[in-house]
Amino acid sequence: MEKKRIVVALGGNALGNTPEEQEKAVSAAARAIAELRAEGHELIIGHGNGPQVGMIHQALNDAGKNARAPFRMPFPECTAMSQGYIGFHLQRALQEELHRRGLRDPVVSLVTQVRVEPSDPAFSHPEKPIGDFCTAEEAARMEKEKGWIYMEDAGRGYRRVVPSPAPAEIMELEGIRRMLEAGIVVITVGGGGIPVIRTAEGLKGVDAVIDKDRASEKLAEDISADILMILTAVDRVYLSFGKPEQKALETLRTAEAERYLREGHFAPGSMLPKMEAAIRFATSAPERYAVITSLEKACAALRGKEGTRIVGQENRK
Amino acid sequence: MEKKRIVVALGGNALGNTPEEQEKAVSAAARAIAELRAEGHELIIGHGNGPQVGMIHQALNDAGKNARAPFRMPFPECTAMSQGYIGFHLQRALQEELHRRGLRDPVVSLVTQVRVEPSDPAFSHPEKPIGDFCTAEEAARMEKEKGWIYMEDAGRGYRRVVPSPAPAEIMELEGIRRMLEAGIVVITVGGGGIPVIRTAEGLKGVDAVIDKDRASEKLAEDISADILMILTAVDRVYLSFGKPEQKALETLRTAEAERYLREGHFAPGSMLPKMEAAIRFATSAPERYAVITSLEKACAALRGKEGTRIVGQENRK
Repeated sequence: MEKKRIVVALGGNALGNTPEEQEKAVSAAARAIAELRAEGHELIIGHGNGPQVGMIHQALNDAGKNARAPFRMPFPECTAMSQGYIGFHLQRALQEELHRRGLRDPVVSLVTQVRVEPSDPAFSHPEKPIGDFCTAEEAARMEKEKGWIYMEDAGRGYRRVVPSPAPAEIMELEGIRRMLEAGIVVITVGGGGIPVIRTAEGLKGVDAVIDKDRASEKLAEDISADILMILTAVDRVYLSFGKPEQKALETLRTAEAERYLREGHFAPGSMLPKMEAAIRFATSAPERYAVITSLEKACAALRGKEGTRIVGQENRK
Repeated sequence: MEKKRIVVALGGNALGNTPEEQEKAVSAAARAIAELRAEGHELIIGHGNGPQVGMIHQALNDAGKNARAPFRMPFPECTAMSQGYIGFHLQRALQEELHRRGLRDPVVSLVTQVRVEPSDPAFSHPEKPIGDFCTAEEAARMEKEKGWIYMEDAGRGYRRVVPSPAPAEIMELEGIRRMLEAGIVVITVGGGGIPVIRTAEGLKGVDAVIDKDRASEKLAEDISADILMILTAVDRVYLSFGKPEQKALETLRTAEAERYLREGHFAPGSMLPKMEAAIRFATSAPERYAVITSLEKACAALRGKEGTRIVGQENRK
């Protein structure tokens, strides 16, 4: 197989909840990614950060409340911390896996900002839950004190919700491009990137979460990737997932994928954003395609033997 | 002045204690660095993280104790978080300052691991204080529970101390080298780097703090920098600092600097490690020299008009 430029999107939930869990979880991811590299592909890795940034945000906000000089740690700064934290484990594990295969390519994790538009409709409909559960009383108090918005979450209590705007620009794109050209494996857009908006005084962080599959897709388009590979908990995408009639999908055209999507086959917050990202990428240029599969099947999926491939209408693949 | 490769080391204490303070503080640093870049130099920026990593470590450890599933966040992971946090503010400010000067060079912050030797004598003499003060009773309990070591700190209570080993290898060096060659401004070795040791199972983080001036110096040597520029709170190095007879130093040879050092002119934890790093760098190759100055005087110091320059015995500068 010829050398391809591949953006790999890794789930944040697959990274575990504690530092020990994360160290173990990243080795599986690192093995999969190292195998792709050993086949000669250019790799850019995006990853989620849901549980990690929730933990960091909670911890720093509690600390800020109780500090002698109280402070508030904004959410974008917590995302930046999670990029450092996850990046450390991921790049170390990937460096080791590459060395084991006799590869000495540099692997680096970048602090990455992603610009969003203040006019994005998501800002009027915050719906992405972050942080811990609280009671209705606590939620009401915080809404009053900080202007934060809370939503009742599946009978388990109240959680703060923030907007999930679309990625408009990856601020470190030119750096990433030059690194790829220099043979570096790049870990970037962690947690979907640190959301920033442009203001008269320069870029400012905003309390928001950019979907990591969407950010990885944007990156894949802008960096002219050949393949967007979304690695998740299942080997393939299914219709009627979890029901007796469930059916695995091998290759599907974007029009077909869109139909299934409209028919409600894919769960919001789970397969839906992945499928949306896959369709968007596969329609962005004629020869591009997306693959959705598990860590274990990543290499085989690239050869078309596993996973679900989403291809554009005119794509001959 | 011809184009030089410069490693700039920024103090962590100069970055402020809260997110708001840090955002303001980094703009002064960013202006100084952007001016150096505007003169055509290749730049690599190292920075401290003392107050920041202390805050993060404290917050995550308190959170870990109180969590439903208790966890401990190791110190190296907290250093990684601080690299993300400080890197975000610093790279954003520096990008803005460059844009204002019509420069479009990419600026990136890297998660950076620095290998140390387990045989480093520092591991038998932990003496670098981290985190908050506690009582003698709390210290005794933690020493028993976790094996951590505490020291009484200037009558203000007890603080945990960790070793401060020498940097042996910057794990991301090859990546940094390629980035510089690709025209990227690189922020790296934040907080002296994430300390790791080599084990049979690969690299492991260790609870330690690498001095940031020493890590920046190591980086400067290994990346073949021309100049190590240490930016701090004072414009120049002084003999008998703060006394009536204090005397500013303009240029000094390494032998002279070593004599002053032995005579106790430089305060431990303050000017002493900076001067040690400067001497080490200036003696590492004939044409190399170090500059110690303030953010405001950085450019003038490079022209020899401000700051203190430490040059090797044979250096003609």
